[in-house]
Formats: sequence, C-alpha cells, structure tokens
Amino acid sequence: MATDVLDVIRTKRDGGRLSDEQVRFFVEGYTAGTIADEQAAALCMAILLRDMAPDELATWTQAMIDSGERLDLSSVARPTVDKHSTGGVGDKVSLVLAPLVAACGAAVPQLSGRGLGHTGGTLDKLEAIPGWQATLPTERVVAQLRDVGAVICAASETLCPADRKLYALRDVTATVEAIPLIASSIMSKKIAEGTESLVLDVKVGSGAFLPELDRARRLAETMVSLGQAHGVRTVALITDMESPLGRACGNGLEVTESVETLRGGGPPDLVELTLALAREMVALARLGGRDGPDGSGADPAAALADGRAFAVWDAMINAQGGDPSARLPLAPVQHEVTAPAGGYLRRLDARAVGVAVWRLGAGRSRKEDPVSPSAGALCVRKPGDRVAAGEPVLVLHADDPARLDGALAALAGAIDVGQEPPEPRPLIVDRIA
Amino acid sequence: MATDVLDVIRTKRDGGRLSDEQVRFFVEGYTAGTIADEQAAALCMAILLRDMAPDELATWTQAMIDSGERLDLSSVARPTVDKHSTGGVGDKVSLVLAPLVAACGAAVPQLSGRGLGHTGGTLDKLEAIPGWQATLPTERVVAQLRDVGAVICAASETLCPADRKLYALRDVTATVEAIPLIASSIMSKKIAEGTESLVLDVKVGSGAFLPELDRARRLAETMVSLGQAHGVRTVALITDMESPLGRACGNGLEVTESVETLRGGGPPDLVELTLALAREMVALARLGGRDGPDGSGADPAAALADGRAFAVWDAMINAQGGDPSARLPLAPVQHEVTAPAGGYLRRLDARAVGVAVWRLGAGRSRKEDPVSPSAGALCVRKPGDRVAAGEPVLVLHADDPARLDGALAALAGAIDVGQEPPEPRPLIVDRIA
Repeated sequence: MATDVLDVIRTKRDGGRLSDEQVRFFVEGYTAGTIADEQAAALCMAILLRDMAPDELATWTQAMIDSGERLDLSSVARPTVDKHSTGGVGDKVSLVLAPLVAACGAAVPQLSGRGLGHTGGTLDKLEAIPGWQATLPTERVVAQLRDVGAVICAASETLCPADRKLYALRDVTATVEAIPLIASSIMSKKIAEGTESLVLDVKVGSGAFLPELDRARRLAETMVSLGQAHGVRTVALITDMESPLGRACGNGLEVTESVETLRGGGPPDLVELTLALAREMVALARLGGRDGPDGSGADPAAALADGRAFAVWDAMINAQGGDPSARLPLAPVQHEVTAPAGGYLRRLDARAVGVAVWRLGAGRSRKEDPVSPSAGALCVRKPGDRVAAGEPVLVLHADDPARLDGALAALAGAIDVGQEPPEPRPLIVDRIA
Repeated sequence: MATDVLDVIRTKRDGGRLSDEQVRFFVEGYTAGTIADEQAAALCMAILLRDMAPDELATWTQAMIDSGERLDLSSVARPTVDKHSTGGVGDKVSLVLAPLVAACGAAVPQLSGRGLGHTGGTLDKLEAIPGWQATLPTERVVAQLRDVGAVICAASETLCPADRKLYALRDVTATVEAIPLIASSIMSKKIAEGTESLVLDVKVGSGAFLPELDRARRLAETMVSLGQAHGVRTVALITDMESPLGRACGNGLEVTESVETLRGGGPPDLVELTLALAREMVALARLGGRDGPDGSGADPAAALADGRAFAVWDAMINAQGGDPSARLPLAPVQHEVTAPAGGYLRRLDARAVGVAVWRLGAGRSRKEDPVSPSAGALCVRKPGDRVAAGEPVLVLHADDPARLDGALAALAGAIDVGQEPPEPRPLIVDRIA
C-alpha cells in the first residue's frame, strides 16, 4: 500500500518512528507542494511534542539535503571547515573567524542567513559595508574559496529548498523550537554546503534561542551526531549568551568592532571565543601541526596578532565588491543609558539588549523588512566592571529619536548594579565532540 | 498587549490553559480567515496531545456556537429533545427514534450530517426515498417541528461555521481523534440547534470511531459536562458497536429495516437500543408521567406497537417531499458470503462490514462523492446464531459486480464460527448522566 500523508502524521502523533519511506515521502511531497502547509504544520507540532529517534532524524536530514543541490568543493585544495552559531546578541564572531581560519590555511565556506528576531544576521552586518554583495553565483563562491580562502555569502535558493519552506512554516506555527527540526535545518544546510568539518557555537543563556542549558546541550549533541552520521567532522562548544558578546550590538557597530579585533585589538570576550572556535576549526581541518599556505604556523592567535587575518578580511571584502576602508555611517541620535547606582555591574541582560537593538532598527520583524546599518548599542560597561551612579552603561544609536522609547522599554530591568562583583561566568560552558 | 496567534499556539503546545480571550481570538480569527490553516492545524495537534481543561473547552464550544446563528425554537410548544450518535455500522436508529419520540409528545429537531468513511450518514439513508429533501429553510424546520413534531434535515451553513471549517481541517491533518475537538464539534452544533435536552449514543467497539471503552467513556463524560455547562439537559449511553446494529447496512436497506421497526417489527437489538434511547429522551423531555398530545401515554414501546410512531414517520417523510410508500430500488447484484464451518457465529466484525458496505458504494471517500441508494449488506446471521457450513452469513448488494472484490477483501477475517456460543455482549454498556 502506498504511503499516505495521514499515516505519516498519525504515526508521529501516536509517538511512533517514521519509516525511511515515510520520511522521504513527506519531505519530497512537501517540497513539491503535494502535501499541504496544514499537514506539514500538524506533523511539525507532533515532532515537537513527540521527538524523533537519531536514525529517523538522520534520514529526515538526508531527505532535506536531497531536496536541492549540493555544493561541490572538490576543486578547493585546502581543507574546508565552517562554523555555525545558533545566534546571539553582539555575536559578530563569523566576521573575524572566517578570515582568521583562512589565514591559518583552511577554506571557510560560510553560507549564512539574515537575522529574524532579536539576534542579528551575519549578512545584515556585512551589508553595512558600502558595495558589499551577499549574493554570489556558485562558481564565484568556489573561486573565492580557492583564491581568498574565505567567503561569507547568502545560501543559494537551490540549497535545501525543503528547509526554506519548512522554516517559513515553523516560524508562523510556533514549531521553531523543536530540537530535531532545529538540528536538521542547520545541519542539512551545512552538509549541503559541502564542508568537510564544522564547529558549532551553541549559545545558552537569556539572549540565546534556547536559554536552558539542558536543551542547548541536547541540541548540540543532536547536531554533532547528525554531522558525524553524514561524514562531516563536527564539534560543538556551548557558550554563554547571558550578556552581549563584546561591546558592539548592531550591524555597522559590529563590523567596526570586528575590524578592531582583526587588527589585534577588540574586547577580551570576543577574542577569547573567536580563538577558541578557531583552534577547534584548525584542529578539525588538521592544520594544527603544519604550516599555513603562506609559510607561517597555523596558530590563530599569531594570525590575529601579525595582520595575516586582517589581510584575508581585506581580500574577502574586496572580492565581494565591498570597500574595507570605507567609513561606516554613524547614527545621528545617541542616547546614554546610565547606571541607577554605583557599584559593580552585575548583569546586562543579553535578550533585553537584543530586543532594544532590534527596536532601534538593527533587526527585522518580517523577512522583507530593511535593516539600518547604523542603529545599535555600545555596551560601555560589561558585567564585572565598576560603575558610578549616573555613568553610562549603554549608548543607544538610532536613526530616528522616535525609536528610543521602545528600546528603553525593552531595557527595563536589564541592568543590575550591586555592591558585590558578580560570580564570574565561564564563556565556554561545555564542549561536545 | 494584543493576543497573538503564536502565543495561543505556544500556550497549548507547552501544556498551558488558553485564556477565554485567547480561545475567542482563535475561533473568531480562524472563522474569519485571519488565522491560517497551518496555524489552526498546529493548534489542533497541540490540543490532541495536550488536552483541554473543562472550563477551557466550554469557552471553546461557546465560541464555536457564537461563530454562527442559533436556531430559535421558542415558537415550538412541545419540549424539544434530540439524539446524536457518534456513528456505527447499520446504525439507523435516528430514522425510527425521531418519529417515535415525537409520537410520545416531544419535538425532535434532528439536524444531521452526511457520512464520511465507514459509517453511513442519516441524510444519505433518507435520500434513498424518492423525492425526499434534506435541505430545508429554517422557517420550514420550525414549522415542521410544530406540525409534525420531528424533522431530520441538513444543518444550515450558518450553523457553527467555525466547526465546518475546523472539521474539514482536522480531516486532512490527522487531528480528528482529539476528544476535546470531537466533543466541541458535536456539542456546538447540537447547542446551536436550540434543543432543550439531548441524548448521546456513544459507540464503543470495532465499528466505532473510538473503539476503546476508556476513550469512549471520556468522550461521553466530556460531552455530558459540556451540555450541562450550556444549559442543555444531557445524558449519554455507551453502546456496543462490535457487530453491526440490526441486519441491514446500506442506505435503502436501512430505510426498509427502519420502516419494519416502525411497524412494530424489526431486529431485537435495533428495537432494544431505540427504546432505551427513546425512554431517555422522554424522561429528559419530562413526558414520562403525562399523556402525549394525542391522548395516549408517553410510552415508547406502546407508540411503536400501536402505529403512532409510524404515522409520524409518514407525515415527516411527506412533509419533506418524500413518498413513504415508494418501493426502494433493489441492487441488481447480490452475493452470498457463507460460513466457513458449522457452529455458532461468534463474531461478525462491524468495522469490516462497514468498510465492505462503503466499498460496495453505500459510502463516500470525499464529501463530493455520490452514494448508492441500493448498495449494502444484509446480515442474515448475527453473533450467537447457529449456522451450517456453506450457509450464508451476509448477502452483499451491489450495483456493479466489479465492486464485490474490494468488499470481499475487507471481509477477510471478519467472520468467526466456533463450537461454543460467544459470551453474550450487553448492548448498553454504560450510562453517563
């Protein structure tokens, strides 16, 4: 008897395991449009509440990959390694990491998305650079990997069309949070992108997509297993997203901070996390023991200090039409958010800052909305810093003063000052391999 | 902050209780089309897996009622009482019961549906009578209740439009089986129909919609509570649907058997169940202790025996354009299904007979399909009867011999004959009030 969409939904609804045939029937049918949105929505909710077995999810992920084309990176001589973050506030790591790891001898094919909600998207950040193009034809992606070693660009429409359709559906049906669906969405795109190895930065804490550690760990374990099942060497770091990463939040502000970091400066937490991820990538790409292509050792800290990472950044931005030396626009409105009392800054809530920055114009509510290159916030104090009453903690940047009210409302209760310094929080919480 | 459809879905997804405002926002929005099918599908699946609290479901049911018009039966002098069955194979009880209870002095407003799947619909059965019209304008429904005391007709499009839309959605998303959604679908229509009291016949066993007793009982309890919460006196009987009710299955065949029963004959199980339901209805309508409108006592058995029930049937069919004396068409193909051995008929599986009759042409797969008035099956032996090897157990009736193969395939394993008589099964399993 032929597979039937109602049987597929009923099987998962009743807590069963979908057969390989059922998984393929569903993913192919939904991509082709023979299975309706309401049927897919019912199945997504059943998956969220009933979960999926590891081998069931591996088949599901494979079907998502098979719904489109796969990038062929076989003409790239260097080892390929990519990184994916589940998204955080002030998380501009990709901008520094891709050129840094390329400077260490790998090829980094970063096919990225745009931001939706309170965490920004890597493409939105880079588009603050005048002239920079996110969309490249496949042959240019491959050529840039060969010539520059790093590319950050939009994923092609032909990569995982099933995921594109499913993600849009999950977004309007409150089924985004299903761990198997998150894991297969991320991993299908990364596997289809053709990378040989992958480092995952799974955020935990108030600004993260999954704030609770147990769920973040489950997501990390699920993705690492999926990568390994599909022959992609995969490691995950679980990292703290209780307060923003670095000081800058917002598209252009984050580019500026990334450039400072690529020049050997930058805030310590951003440098620490970027180097930790870079070392994992270099190890997965098996570059740790040998020299990089330009004769220097594959040591990320050295590549950051001696200007090699910056040189790749310069080439990468130039190759995509951007002007790396262009001055980024400064927002006309700047507003200080000050400490309510003197003492130690004990908490600066990442989610609140993310929502504030979003409302200032740095993020979008619907995928067709434009974003501002200059709106955002600078965290002039970070948790653990001393602060006097009335001194600024945050400086909000806006194109329009009318946007300040919404941002300030989001920040209510986001700043705690106390007499005792806060317990130090480790930035890297766990490692899953 | 305004209610948001994603908040509604998330609340139920996470096992919470929807507020009254959320319930109304959802039911109104879905009926109006501002909430999409995929959002409603996700919510239905979450309700199926997370359940609803009694007061939450009462609000939901009220919102379904409020999505359309309510019938105003205040001009009907007699007490109004209706009956609803969750559907069974050979279940033609409504055809006998409506005129019978009207003959006892009540008004019976039976707004019914068509069959979908292996159980037949009351309207499909009556449409086997030449000239009979299922669709009546509201003023004629009310007039017929006043003049005849019984009407069986199609529910108007303006009655519970939310249910119409939700039912169609549930049918394609494997969310039909959610007990709160079944209960609110049935009860919203019955409450909107304006009846003062209601008897529910909740089937249990292989031919029932919910075969397991615990789920059937939960459905019955849920519906009785809902009726009482909305001021409708409600009683439920849980009745056996392990084998077909009576002998006739199929539209015209069931009309013929109903007429035999209305003339004082008919199979004992059909008579027993009809009288049990009629007594409940007479009691709810508070007619038990006083005389019927024509001077006789409100005793259903007497009204069946002395021809008063038949007289109401005659008037009821006539009032809707039907010819009660017309000879119903006999199917040209008749095929005997015989006993594999001699002994006692121990089992005649209701679901298998229902599917066979459906495939013979008596039922439909899609709501726009036509049904045959003459296709069906007669159970010439019933469980507990003695049968010789090779003697007929069933006679299949078909318009086209090509339909027999599918029906016979459905009947594989449906008939058990053994040397011991089967344990007697009570027809009325439980009563919920």
